[in-house]
Parts: sequence; structure tokens; C-alpha cells
Amino acid sequence: MILGNDPILLTPGPLTTSLETKQAMLRDWGSWDAAFNAITTSMCKDLVDVVNGAGTHVCVPFQGSGTFSVEAALGNLVPRDAKVLVPQNGAYCQRILKILKYLGRASVALDLAEDQQPSAAMIEEAFARDPAITHVAQVHCETGTGILNPLAEIAAACERHGKGLIVDAMSTFGAVEIDVRKSGIEAVIAASGKCIEGPPGMAFVIARQSSVEKCQGNSHSLALDMFDQWTYMQKTAQWRFTPPTHIVAAFRVALDQFKAEGGVAARGARYRRNCETLVDGMAGLGLKPFLPRAVQAPVIVTFHAPGDANYAFKPFYEKVKARGYILYPGKLTQVETFRVGCIGAIDHNEMRNVVSAVAETLKEMGIKQAAPVRTAAYA
Amino acid sequence: MILGNDPILLTPGPLTTSLETKQAMLRDWGSWDAAFNAITTSMCKDLVDVVNGAGTHVCVPFQGSGTFSVEAALGNLVPRDAKVLVPQNGAYCQRILKILKYLGRASVALDLAEDQQPSAAMIEEAFARDPAITHVAQVHCETGTGILNPLAEIAAACERHGKGLIVDAMSTFGAVEIDVRKSGIEAVIAASGKCIEGPPGMAFVIARQSSVEKCQGNSHSLALDMFDQWTYMQKTAQWRFTPPTHIVAAFRVALDQFKAEGGVAARGARYRRNCETLVDGMAGLGLKPFLPRAVQAPVIVTFHAPGDANYAFKPFYEKVKARGYILYPGKLTQVETFRVGCIGAIDHNEMRNVVSAVAETLKEMGIKQAAPVRTAAYA
Repeated sequence: MILGNDPILLTPGPLTTSLETKQAMLRDWGSWDAAFNAITTSMCKDLVDVVNGAGTHVCVPFQGSGTFSVEAALGNLVPRDAKVLVPQNGAYCQRILKILKYLGRASVALDLAEDQQPSAAMIEEAFARDPAITHVAQVHCETGTGILNPLAEIAAACERHGKGLIVDAMSTFGAVEIDVRKSGIEAVIAASGKCIEGPPGMAFVIARQSSVEKCQGNSHSLALDMFDQWTYMQKTAQWRFTPPTHIVAAFRVALDQFKAEGGVAARGARYRRNCETLVDGMAGLGLKPFLPRAVQAPVIVTFHAPGDANYAFKPFYEKVKARGYILYPGKLTQVETFRVGCIGAIDHNEMRNVVSAVAETLKEMGIKQAAPVRTAAYA
Repeated sequence: MILGNDPILLTPGPLTTSLETKQAMLRDWGSWDAAFNAITTSMCKDLVDVVNGAGTHVCVPFQGSGTFSVEAALGNLVPRDAKVLVPQNGAYCQRILKILKYLGRASVALDLAEDQQPSAAMIEEAFARDPAITHVAQVHCETGTGILNPLAEIAAACERHGKGLIVDAMSTFGAVEIDVRKSGIEAVIAASGKCIEGPPGMAFVIARQSSVEKCQGNSHSLALDMFDQWTYMQKTAQWRFTPPTHIVAAFRVALDQFKAEGGVAARGARYRRNCETLVDGMAGLGLKPFLPRAVQAPVIVTFHAPGDANYAFKPFYEKVKARGYILYPGKLTQVETFRVGCIGAIDHNEMRNVVSAVAETLKEMGIKQAAPVRTAAYA
């Protein structure tokens, strides 16, 4: 097997995991066995602790990707006659709206530009315009661009108006502080292959216990029935259906490393340093981030594509990959971009190497104009 | 890490995988990268070939456990106004009925005893009684007991009457022949952690392409939308949502081993020998299978619990585990049983060792009466 020679993933999950985490997958676990059940139980406890939810919130893990758990949260915690406000500034907000449509739940979008944060005032205006709104579904970091949405002020607004807040914290959980106790957050959703740095294949909803207890009968799906999954797990410490045992075991090891590193504060600090090293280094090459620094989450950075006729994403991607780094394509429709993740088992030295790899690639491609087209035109 | 000293899983998935398969998880893959996309594409092709479906059927993989894909198949391939007949002789048949209820699809159960196979005649009678039936959902091996249901004759009956047949082949796929060409099978469902001997975390539906093409709009779920998953994969070779990359990569290696071993014929032969070695050896200890040999699938064997006052499942399980083997609890409500799987990266020598471990355990527990209570009473 190739060990240590693989490209580093600069993608927002799957991401680069530590060797120790991957080695935890070199074992087969009986999904009914007490040794495995103990992993599930301790994992759920630790995940609740990450958002300060002990005593009020419970963790309900699900098989599948993060989207499966977003669908589970919306399909179970939002009653069939409820209405959901979705502040919308990117692809993952749009996905929530799409899920709500499948589920037959009423929804209303608060449409924003992709580089614009929602504010408490906007949310409260939306509440005033439409009193039928019962819930807000908020993406914490919109990975489409990398924008960090102001969760604390939105949570406070929801609490003031008695609206249930469901947070898609897929790419921030474990790296950006979320405190379900301070604010009235009803549920936080994340996945194994993100900032806890496990492999992908499992996700989870950390939800207020009283909400889970009363959600029986809401679910559109057996596989994604949160009440059923939670009550069965409470009784048996087992998953209802075959869990991804290797993924769960590796995620447990990743959680141990997360705790040893120093939890959210330390991990967030490492990612912020990764992000700053990247942005500063790329600026030195003339590459410009799409977002202003003030709204940039330390998760993934969208860069404008170089405004040079010699640039094309595919060869750029391949040449950077040949130097050991896997980038991510842009997800914006209006401007040409590419994305670079700052998360995973990597540090700022790795980010310096990324900048070097990009510098060499630009040179090899004969790209002199690394700044974006529009900036050049305005200069 | 513990390598080679782990207990062998005698469970019907997760099961014991080869070290080579597990080692494939020592690498992180970009879910957008061409190298990973190539794995997905070749995996889908090979899976279609296992059931002889090239040219007529396509493979649509889903994140999650087998149940997720059963729900996807039923939710997409069964139109909202259709009616499904479910020949019912165990827990997994009941699960199908439960899913259909969630989905709001009309269903009718053909209730059988847990040791009784459905027959073509019974199915045809059910069609005659209820002309509204459009589909049959058939579990191939009902893992609750281990009974093999006669798929070929049921498929022929469905074809004669123009009913769509959806097969839950979770624990037979790759080990018992299924030929979608000979019979009019519309879809076959299985999972990564079963007879192909991969890790759990992914499942798939192999469905008639013409059925997939016309299923748009049926799905109750975004995550489990088969039309959406398939069309996106056709366009991009990528999964719509983050795939369990490590699981997919390991499953690809497991498929290579499956092909190298000689495909369904060779794998089925190994499992049959495992099963015979187990049943013969256990018979020598006085342990009696629940099913007659004629209907026993070479997948998992349900044994009557010993009819001895010293027997209890929990200590029996723990003591056999201490000897290196993880058994499975029984799933019958009427009689006390335990189950022993015959599938996974194990051979008949392993099964001989299992019998020895059970023999030692019975002795240690002071169990003299290994035959079941009822048999003893009738003797």
C-alpha cells in the first residue's frame, strides 16, 4: 500500500486524516458486540460535549453522508405543518431548500449574495413579514464559497422569537465554537469526514432531547427516522441497521486526537493559521480570494481564477496534484474560481508547500497574470 | 493496531474481511478526483456483471447500510400508485413491509412460517386474489433464519404475470447465482459488507435501466433519489454527495479478490463447504439447526439453543468470543436460538475451529444436553 506518498487533500471533506485514524480501520468489528457498542456510546457523548450540549441535547448518528443527516434533521425535527426560513447564500443553503421540497415542508428563502452574511435584523424582518415561520435552517459555513455565517446573532434572534434553529455545521463542527447552551439552538448537524478529521461515511444530528422525544411519526423515511434510531440506541447501544463499523472505529480515534490537541479552540487555531498562511502566500503570487477576510471561515478559501489566457482549471489541477496536493473546483456560477481547503490533518507548513506548488505550477503554465480578470480590468 | 488477533466475525455482515481489503483503507481519496471516479465506475460495471445484467441493468450505489438501498429501490422503482406483494417469512421481509408503510405504498403480505419457502403457486394465487398487485418484493435469503427462498421460480411467476420483481439479495449477492437475464428481475439490492466481503457503509441497487430512466419524481427523499443519483453519476462519474471513499476503495479491492477467486461459483462453493462443515460439526455436539438442510442458505445457520439449564446465550457468546469467534444472537421470537454465519474471508478449517471452540465452551459451562428442549421432550 501507498503510505505517506498520497496527495494531500485540500478539499472540505473527505480530507486528509492521520495515519493513526486510518489504521483504526485495520480491524473488523461485530456490530452487535459490546466492544463496538461502547465506541458508539462514547462517541455520542463526546460529540454532544463539543457543542456544550450535555444534559439538554443528544447525539443521533446516521449512516451515510452529511446530507443524509441534514435530511434526517429536517424530516424529523420540523413537523409536517411547520414552515422553515432558509437564509440563502450558497449551494448548501439551496440543498436545504431542495430537501424541504422533497419533504413537503413549507419553506421561504431569504436570498443573499454569495459574499453576503445574513444578519439578525434580516432574520427578524423575515419573521415579521411571515409569522407562519416556525423554524430557521442555517448553514454555518457555506462551503460553496467558504463564508462564515454569524451563528450567535442568528441564534439569539431565533431564541427571542421562539423559532427552532437547525444548524448545518458540516464544515465548522469542531473548528468554530458552537454553544447550544448560550443560544437556543435546537439541532446541530455534522459528519465524520470533516473537522474532527475522520473518514467519511457517517454523520450525526445533535438535537435537543425534548425535540427528539416528541418527533415520533414525523419521518418520511425508515432509514432516516430519528426517533426510531435514537430510542433503539438508548435501549440497546446498537444502531438499528448495520453501522459503517470501520468508519465509526476510525472516527473514535480521530475524536481522541481532537481532544488531545485541545478541542475546538486548538483545532480552530490550527485551521486559522492554515488559512492565513494560505491566503497570505497566495496573495504573494497575485491570487485573490473571492471573500473579504472578515467573513472568511478558516475552512475553505475560494480564489478567483488567474486572469491569464494560459489558465484553465483542469491542467492547473493536474499539475498541482502531481506536486502532491488535491485542490477543489469552484462552485460559483458567476465568476471563475477554484477552492483550497484548510482543514484536515495538516498544518501551516503544509500550506506553505501548497503555495510553492501553486507558484511552480503557474510558472510551468506560463501564467503571468495571476490576478483575476476583473481586478485587472479595474486596475 | 491489532492485526490477526481479532475475533473472527461469524455474523452475516459486517463480516471478516481480508487484510488486503482493510489495507485499502489506509489512503485518503479526493471524492472529486479522477482516480476515485474510476473506482466508482469500474465497481458499478463489475457489480452489474455479477448478476449478468450488462446491457439491460445499471448499478446505482448509495451511501449507508443495505436498508438504505432497499428503501431507495422501493421508493423509486415502485410508483406511488402501485401495490407490492411481500412473501413474508422473516424479519427482513417485515422490514420491507415497514418501509412500504413509511413510503405510503400499498402492500400485501403473503405470510408464511419462518421455516417455510414461498412457491410460485402461492405467488400466483396471490396475484389472482388481488389484481391490483403490480410488484413483488422478495428477500432472497432471509437472514433472520437463514432460509433460502426459491428466487428462480418466483421470478418466472412474476415474468409470466408481468409483475415487477425487486429482490433483496443482501446476503446472497455474490454467493448464490442470480441471473437477471434469465428471469424478469427488475432490481437486485445488496451491500458492500456482505458476500463480496468488503467493509460496510455502502449499498447498491442493480436495476433495469428502463425502470431507472422512468422513475423520476417518485422519490420521497433527496438522499435516496435513485434517478438523481444515477443521472448525476452518468454525467460526472461522481457521487452526488460525499461517498464513503475508504469503503468504496476497499470494496473495489474486495471485488478484485472475488473475481480472482472465481466469482459466484467459487465463492458459493466455499461458503457451502463452510456451512456443511459447521452443521456437521455442530451435529456431532448435539446442536440442531432450526431449518431443514434443503432450505438452508449457505450464509447463516440458526441453531436451537441447548436444552440444558446451564445454558444462557450471554455467557455462551462471551466464552466463544474469548476463543476467537463472534457469534450472532437468534432473531426468532418463538424458540430460543443462536446464529452462526458462514460468510466472510474464512474457510472450512476456520469452521472446524469454531466447532472446537463451541465444544470447549459447552464443556466449560457444564452443558450436557446440547440438543434443544423440545427435541429432548419428544425423544
